Amino acid sequence: MDEPRGKEISVARNLAHKLIASHLVDGDLSAGAEISLTIDQTLTQDATGTLVMQELEALGLSRARTEISVQYVDHNLLQTDEKNAEDHEFLRSASRRYGLWFSKPGNGVSHPTHMQRFGVPGKTMVGSDSHTCAAGSLGMLAIGVGGLEVALAIAGQPLRVRMPEIWGVQLTGELPHWVSAKDVVLEMLRRHGVSGGVNRIIEYHGPGLAGLTAMDRHVIANMGAELGATTTVFPADSAVREFLRAEGREDDFLELAADTDASYDVEDHIDLSALEPLIARPSAPDNVVPVREVAGTEVSQVVIGSSANPGLRDFAIAAAMVRGRQTHHAVSFDINPTSREILEDLTRMGATFELIAAGARIHQSGCMGCIGMGQAPAVGSNSLRTFPRNFPGRSGTREDSVWLCSPETAAASALTGMITDPRDADQDYPELALPDHASVNTAMLVRPLPEEQARAVELVKGPNISALPDFPPLPARVEAPVLLKAGDHVSTDEISPAGARALPLRSNIPALAEHTFTRIDTDYPTRTRSHPDGHIVVGGHNYGQGSSREHAAITPRFLGLQVVIAKSFARIHWQNLANFGIVPLEFTDPDDYDDIAVDDALLIDDLRNRLSTADELDVRNTTRDRTFRVRHRLSPRQVEAVIAGGVIPLLASRASND
Amino acid sequence: MDEPRGKEISVARNLAHKLIASHLVDGDLSAGAEISLTIDQTLTQDATGTLVMQELEALGLSRARTEISVQYVDHNLLQTDEKNAEDHEFLRSASRRYGLWFSKPGNGVSHPTHMQRFGVPGKTMVGSDSHTCAAGSLGMLAIGVGGLEVALAIAGQPLRVRMPEIWGVQLTGELPHWVSAKDVVLEMLRRHGVSGGVNRIIEYHGPGLAGLTAMDRHVIANMGAELGATTTVFPADSAVREFLRAEGREDDFLELAADTDASYDVEDHIDLSALEPLIARPSAPDNVVPVREVAGTEVSQVVIGSSANPGLRDFAIAAAMVRGRQTHHAVSFDINPTSREILEDLTRMGATFELIAAGARIHQSGCMGCIGMGQAPAVGSNSLRTFPRNFPGRSGTREDSVWLCSPETAAASALTGMITDPRDADQDYPELALPDHASVNTAMLVRPLPEEQARAVELVKGPNISALPDFPPLPARVEAPVLLKAGDHVSTDEISPAGARALPLRSNIPALAEHTFTRIDTDYPTRTRSHPDGHIVVGGHNYGQGSSREHAAITPRFLGLQVVIAKSFARIHWQNLANFGIVPLEFTDPDDYDDIAVDDALLIDDLRNRLSTADELDVRNTTRDRTFRVRHRLSPRQVEAVIAGGVIPLLASRASND
Repeated sequence: MDEPRGKEISVARNLAHKLIASHLVDGDLSAGAEISLTIDQTLTQDATGTLVMQELEALGLSRARTEISVQYVDHNLLQTDEKNAEDHEFLRSASRRYGLWFSKPGNGVSHPTHMQRFGVPGKTMVGSDSHTCAAGSLGMLAIGVGGLEVALAIAGQPLRVRMPEIWGVQLTGELPHWVSAKDVVLEMLRRHGVSGGVNRIIEYHGPGLAGLTAMDRHVIANMGAELGATTTVFPADSAVREFLRAEGREDDFLELAADTDASYDVEDHIDLSALEPLIARPSAPDNVVPVREVAGTEVSQVVIGSSANPGLRDFAIAAAMVRGRQTHHAVSFDINPTSREILEDLTRMGATFELIAAGARIHQSGCMGCIGMGQAPAVGSNSLRTFPRNFPGRSGTREDSVWLCSPETAAASALTGMITDPRDADQDYPELALPDHASVNTAMLVRPLPEEQARAVELVKGPNISALPDFPPLPARVEAPVLLKAGDHVSTDEISPAGARALPLRSNIPALAEHTFTRIDTDYPTRTRSHPDGHIVVGGHNYGQGSSREHAAITPRFLGLQVVIAKSFARIHWQNLANFGIVPLEFTDPDDYDDIAVDDALLIDDLRNRLSTADELDVRNTTRDRTFRVRHRLSPRQVEAVIAGGVIPLLASRASND
Repeated sequence: MDEPRGKEISVARNLAHKLIASHLVDGDLSAGAEISLTIDQTLTQDATGTLVMQELEALGLSRARTEISVQYVDHNLLQTDEKNAEDHEFLRSASRRYGLWFSKPGNGVSHPTHMQRFGVPGKTMVGSDSHTCAAGSLGMLAIGVGGLEVALAIAGQPLRVRMPEIWGVQLTGELPHWVSAKDVVLEMLRRHGVSGGVNRIIEYHGPGLAGLTAMDRHVIANMGAELGATTTVFPADSAVREFLRAEGREDDFLELAADTDASYDVEDHIDLSALEPLIARPSAPDNVVPVREVAGTEVSQVVIGSSANPGLRDFAIAAAMVRGRQTHHAVSFDINPTSREILEDLTRMGATFELIAAGARIHQSGCMGCIGMGQAPAVGSNSLRTFPRNFPGRSGTREDSVWLCSPETAAASALTGMITDPRDADQDYPELALPDHASVNTAMLVRPLPEEQARAVELVKGPNISALPDFPPLPARVEAPVLLKAGDHVSTDEISPAGARALPLRSNIPALAEHTFTRIDTDYPTRTRSHPDGHIVVGGHNYGQGSSREHAAITPRFLGLQVVIAKSFARIHWQNLANFGIVPLEFTDPDDYDDIAVDDALLIDDLRNRLSTADELDVRNTTRDRTFRVRHRLSPRQVEAVIAGGVIPLLASRASND
């Protein structure tokens, strides 16, 4: 190890740097700098995709400019009223109109399905789902972002992100029996917590990879989202070739790896042979302990499935463990096949029969309980799931008690009715005979129409589908009342709630807007109607934390919100506000917050000019005859968007000027 | 045909009369007379069963006195929040406490599952589900009734019903290819409409039976409910013996048939060989036309399943028809296996694979979309279903467009994307090779506990499970305000709504009560709280029509309703009012209705005595200083119950006096 090393002089590159460099439009690879990347593929699911399609419509897009864009339907499959089915019809028509692939309801969860049918080593992808990073399992650079960023990528725009640090995790050794990929990523969460990966790309490397299939790597890459990482990458090696061959796509294989002497900004190491079965206790994915530490805890529900354990192997090992036995009489044993292809394979190999015979409830292929769409357990009873997340209430149950574990731990516990380390399950480790070739069947993946036919397609909008509202440009001068004064840490959940009542309205902005801020102030939507010329919201610190949902910017904008003045903003919401034409301003002196009350009238003169020419500006409280100072942190590009009324009006006006 | 015939002199009996005579406690077999029958078995499902279990608790039952009582969980399987799972836990614990079998969520739809595991020729059954009559397929006398009647049967009380007419339907000939049992009952609906069977038992007989399996007969008996029949009976013949043998229960077989020269009150005849594929158009089960008349209509959804087409054969023929093909790209092809046993058999014979490969969404075993639990189609798009009912909005979709048909018509239409007569489907009629023995697997049917253990079981009541409220006896004198004045034809849906918001509250009377009458008067629940001593409701004609739900009596009673004065009552609701201690009174002069306004105070003196001693009584409107006359039609037994505060307090007080 006498060779000189270090960023300055080494030309050896890690895989993340290679993937970024090959798609770089703007910027350089120094961590923290803004870079622009060309995007080859996009992925949207139905819960976020309806808005993306409405954004494409608002942008006036003629046809997708990516290599591959796929619209999946995997979230809202319960169809308790007509709204889900209307969303599906709308998404089908929009896919036909814009040249996207359409994955029908029942075809499967987006991430494993995309990997099976469309994943290609070396490609970039953005997706409007936080687990988009799972595609890193094939050597892709795949990043979960907000819907508008995906819409822009579909329209051919590069993605702008801050360059992350690269975190190399060296894997050595081989997993023992009864320990599997889920335990690897649970070990990462045990060590580093849910923010351990923030502003980082995790790159796995080392000899331990040899024992991990591509689908095992999907498990690990998928839950990089739980570490807060920008994404995760794995090399494209013989395991990836084998996967693509089984999927009938060996031609898509491209070998990709870090250079042998590549370095990383941060380094870590896991000896796979030293791992044991792990489990995340309620109610955080990083609340990880060895299974044996909590063995014996009674369980009422065991669920196997989701993008966090999506592979044939994950179901097959559970089937082998319950073969010829009966799951416990007090346990609901739920199987969520992740895709039609995997259910076909499971059925062909006899595993479906074994699961049913052992007492499984076989559900339709999709996300199901993983996103709170059904499968809610009883209050206080323990539910073991192979899912990626166990945030409080995410199951749909108030005061839930959800644990995250591997399929091995799940199956062992379903048999006994209590949390059970699979090593203590009193059975031999099953030998799995998995098929060499997958049941490739693309009939539920509807191909993009040829361009000429596509142009003639009309979007099918049921009564629940609204067009994205037209937002006017920013006025030169804002004089408006403060209609809401929020405290610190207001989350996007409080601005635009999710849940069974609001979620079906995600494609109906006027209807969804009636839920805006109602967790804080039930009258807010009503009061905005008395002020059709606009209003202002005042916030404390960390305004807009939590979920990335764009609806938290669009719905208050729809109700007339023009300006938010806060002590500080959460990053993604701040960007969403600017994207949708709401001016985010910060108090230069946070104490000025105390001198504003609801219903005060604020005046910001010459606002458009001030944003373009200065970082700070004055706000006059005409009710109290006081003036205070605020700053904005918008880039020139963002100022331009805000003045135009948002990114969509800006781009639409450019397109019409072409 | 020279022999003398007629009721008076013939001793030959039809099967319905034999079944009734063998269980008769009281009364005689003249149509219209009240009879009492001993009940051997009961069936409850989860949507109505939680109330039945609360009634058992209120009755202070020690242990079920029936031969077999089974609590199924098949309706509320979506679990969008904790309420469903809490109901399941409550039902499990109540089954253990009272000595019932418990069929776990995922084990299957009650009717086919009961037939497979528990049906015995010659037995009587009541069930708190309108399709309980399906068990007539095995030669049982099985009647759908209100929950309290089931609770009383479980407690060993006889069932009181009005003796129906017996309607003999002679079947001759053999069904042509592509025509199946569903078409037989659709033909009955085409001929006789949805009230054709009211106050009748339909008894099928004749040589045409030879070509119908027991499960075919289940299809026909099940949809006797759509004809309004009290129940349907088939003989127990070699087809029933074969069915029971396949289920491993040949010992339960008992041959049963009408005497050869038996007569019927009403007679009809169907030549099976003359039938063709039929379909019920939106939105009534009797809106029946030949499939060819509507062929070519576009469809967006095809669903196979439900108690109306529950058998292995019904799924297997669909699988054979789609084998090696793809369902249309614009169609959602949904398969609802009716039970775990049938899904096991389908999987074993390869049919599950064929369905998945052709693009099916395989759902968990249960009622699913048949009772509006998911699978709601888009507004205005056509959904073809093998279900029993297509009432407007029952699918969960406002302005839905649901059609009812056979599995053959459903599968043919799924392939083409439009309504298609299976005879025009351009394929040979498939030869089905069904297994001789069913996959009998009883592990999801939890046995009753031995009595001593059962007594120690505590009912598990999550936060959503309330005890049945205690209702006080009727006061000697009622003086109370009129809080609501309703028009004609108020339905039980308007009194206590169903739907996704109210249905999960069915086991929580205080919470459900907040929905009482809110479709007519949103303030009603609030106003009742200002009158804790009780109140009166005034109604027009046909008060309480529609669904039999007991909640329409219990929830207003919970809010203090003591007396309903109406122009006339719907039969079942009238009985429910009396069962739950509300006095139903009729204006002797309907014009007196016009002289009452909301908030008038009414006085009924000496009410208890008057009910016991006379048919008519006086009501004084003290606000308007007027007196008017009303009548009651209660039997002495019902008067006793009303005075006690309802049937449950009456029986509980008797039990405590024992």
